[in-house]
Amino acid sequence: MPNRTVFFVSDGTGITAETFGNAILAQFETPMRRVRLPFLDSVDKAHQAVRQINHTAEIEGKRPLVFTTVVNEEVLAVFKTHCQGRMMDMFDTFVQPIEEELGIKSNHRVGRFSDVTRSKEYHDRIEAINFSLAHDDGQSNTDLESSDVILVGVSRSGKTPTSLYLAMQHGLKASNYPLIPEDFERRKLPPALLPHRKKIFGLTIAPERLSEIRNERRPNSRYASLQNCRMEVAEAEAMMRREGIRWLSTTTKSIEEIATTILQELRPERLEY
Amino acid sequence: MPNRTVFFVSDGTGITAETFGNAILAQFETPMRRVRLPFLDSVDKAHQAVRQINHTAEIEGKRPLVFTTVVNEEVLAVFKTHCQGRMMDMFDTFVQPIEEELGIKSNHRVGRFSDVTRSKEYHDRIEAINFSLAHDDGQSNTDLESSDVILVGVSRSGKTPTSLYLAMQHGLKASNYPLIPEDFERRKLPPALLPHRKKIFGLTIAPERLSEIRNERRPNSRYASLQNCRMEVAEAEAMMRREGIRWLSTTTKSIEEIATTILQELRPERLEY
Repeated sequence: MPNRTVFFVSDGTGITAETFGNAILAQFETPMRRVRLPFLDSVDKAHQAVRQINHTAEIEGKRPLVFTTVVNEEVLAVFKTHCQGRMMDMFDTFVQPIEEELGIKSNHRVGRFSDVTRSKEYHDRIEAINFSLAHDDGQSNTDLESSDVILVGVSRSGKTPTSLYLAMQHGLKASNYPLIPEDFERRKLPPALLPHRKKIFGLTIAPERLSEIRNERRPNSRYASLQNCRMEVAEAEAMMRREGIRWLSTTTKSIEEIATTILQELRPERLEY
Repeated sequence: MPNRTVFFVSDGTGITAETFGNAILAQFETPMRRVRLPFLDSVDKAHQAVRQINHTAEIEGKRPLVFTTVVNEEVLAVFKTHCQGRMMDMFDTFVQPIEEELGIKSNHRVGRFSDVTRSKEYHDRIEAINFSLAHDDGQSNTDLESSDVILVGVSRSGKTPTSLYLAMQHGLKASNYPLIPEDFERRKLPPALLPHRKKIFGLTIAPERLSEIRNERRPNSRYASLQNCRMEVAEAEAMMRREGIRWLSTTTKSIEEIATTILQELRPERLEY
């Protein structure tokens, strides 16, 4: 039973308000109900949102937490005047100190995504997604030289979600290649990858976890058996060591953590922009 | 020429610090160099990062902005004592007021992603990514009943990136189906979709923009010609109107905005959790 409601309020998508609020709320054990209220870009919508928040306050007998990234001043005024929630205003809090530091005024622009669709950065993200889709699971050997990163690892070690995340969030053309029994028998990387060794990053995983994951797909198969998973993981790690490939274990890491680690290792310049 | 350097500093991935900082910096026109410094989880690494920041301050003759979400108190102490940047500390600023509001202490836990890999939410995200990959571009009619959302639209209207984003960020099983000339001739939705009409959401796009996008792929083709794009878009919009399908134009919307709009329309409960 959640003992408090939290609202994420924005005149854009609310993604920033939500990220911001959730990072802070991760510091508290108490269960909460979370509600995102996006696109509040008019006074009318602001009043409607405030009614919803105040209604929740009455019903629950506790004032909700309200994380906001509202930029529109008229919308914000409605909240400041009428909202009974406990407001945590990211912009109000930080924009003014930065204005002082930089000696310039802010422009009160809504949303970091406005008009991005025609930017080169956005275009590159979309291109990277298409590239990574076409180069998922070793589907294509063509155009590997334009890959930014080539992930390798045994089946179900986390290559596909990581590739797509790198493409979607960082605009990286990420291909991925499974390491399969034939590769282990040959004791060599898939031949198509050899010219691109510097871009290769390996993913490994604890055999016990791999077996669990594979068992969801193909219960009681040889493919999913702990014995087979142990063998494949040992072979894959031996190969990566032999070939001098950097690698990490995905066992307890989220996609976000895996992606950030890969960027740090392989494309540190992507952490600067 | 950037006139200020900004650091995003974290003992986790730094994604929250970066989102938080960039949302605020979007309010300023001035060009800045941005550097993410992730995984600062020891006093040693903190000192190294502080040296880098202070070095930048000296070279540029201006103190850098430093957005932090550092939770580890020893790491934070290094920054507070030695860092010459202008610190913007998200946690310091907001955690204490929330402790007061809730009447409980925070737990100083690092990162919202810690140990998430075994959570149901994380598991569902990975499953959703695999589902959406398997159901991209009408590849599979099987298991459509477990789709949360089915996107339809002409080729290159934005279905694939939106599906993958819905899966990755919201754990939604999103399929997508192209609307093609055969569908327009039959004046009917693809037959496999008919039982799932309530889950369908349409994407459309301005013919001029579509023609630009298609021309990058297949320059000077009939497929990319403005005339053909006009015809396809008109047919697709007419079909969506006829079939009572909700839709939006992706022309100037980012993936994030499209996804949030779809959630609001089709799965508003996904904005509450």
